Amino acid sequence: MKKSHGPKTLAYPLPAWLVGTYDENGAPNIMTAAWAGILASDPPVIGVSIRPSRATFDGITLHKAFTVSCPSAALAVETDFAGIVSGRMHDKFREAGLTPAKATLVNAPYVEECPVVAECRLLKTLELGSHVLFAGQILDVKAEEGVESENGSLDVPRIDPLVYSSAGYFRLGEFLGPAFSIGKKLVKAVPQPEQ
Amino acid sequence: MKKSHGPKTLAYPLPAWLVGTYDENGAPNIMTAAWAGILASDPPVIGVSIRPSRATFDGITLHKAFTVSCPSAALAVETDFAGIVSGRMHDKFREAGLTPAKATLVNAPYVEECPVVAECRLLKTLELGSHVLFAGQILDVKAEEGVESENGSLDVPRIDPLVYSSAGYFRLGEFLGPAFSIGKKLVKAVPQPEQ
Repeated sequence: MKKSHGPKTLAYPLPAWLVGTYDENGAPNIMTAAWAGILASDPPVIGVSIRPSRATFDGITLHKAFTVSCPSAALAVETDFAGIVSGRMHDKFREAGLTPAKATLVNAPYVEECPVVAECRLLKTLELGSHVLFAGQILDVKAEEGVESENGSLDVPRIDPLVYSSAGYFRLGEFLGPAFSIGKKLVKAVPQPEQ
Repeated sequence: MKKSHGPKTLAYPLPAWLVGTYDENGAPNIMTAAWAGILASDPPVIGVSIRPSRATFDGITLHKAFTVSCPSAALAVETDFAGIVSGRMHDKFREAGLTPAKATLVNAPYVEECPVVAECRLLKTLELGSHVLFAGQILDVKAEEGVESENGSLDVPRIDPLVYSSAGYFRLGEFLGPAFSIGKKLVKAVPQPEQ
């Protein structure tokens, strides 16, 4: 039996990504975004929704570029910090003890300590009331060499991604099975899978 | 040291949500969407990106409505199945043993077995190449009574949300701390938090 909770932003799970930008003087900033996700495959597009009051909003608007750094569970405290204070008043990289690295393909900084980062060129925006969605074309993904599996793909347990879900932060737990695979037991005739 | 992996849709973690729609005859359909997330707070907006070839694309376009059902880890097989086959050829609810429930505020079905569901009215669309982003205003969230904590809020461990991350499906693991809280230890002067 389901009970109504009203029009709220309750959905599980969510990411807690660090969005990196430069300000007008080239100073690096980050903010934590849970209103974020992949938006398309071809071209690869990632989306982050930002309030116009944020320093990050100005940084993306100015440089038409941002990065998304995916933190590991070990960075839960730093990630929460970057969602609490404003880049207008704080040097969040320095105060969190994080290292800004200049992206190679866009004019934005990423977080060196994060295992996986995406460099994005602003493609489109969508106004949605409280937030503006910035859709960024992913020009490159960079990952720590230590999080690759033997076949060169990225290994999720080695990334140990931080997961956000209303109450707080979690790490990943039990592996339940591979995608486009465990569901086949319910299929009688399988058309081509397509993401 | 980071290594380039090229322009790919690699980001961690991602959701694996079930998007519910009716077709032109009122038949219920679901598809699995990992290209999805919350997009705004006020109004509350959720986004799902869908290929134009999908039956779900037609359903949203026709009825200007969809639901997002968040599966628990126990529904990993059913969720993977709904991402493998097409609603044009399969009655995915029936074949997966899932129950379609009519949303109360929009013309779309949700998955009764999912612990948390959102009823959404189509607000805006954004064309992004391979996919079209459908931004839906959340008119109501419904949750199983069993996943509420004592104070009436939703309890993440009781929801036991399914998490998707390239290689496959995971459940949540260790709780690392509450949001807008664990990062305060790095703050000297705290402005108002704001999502």
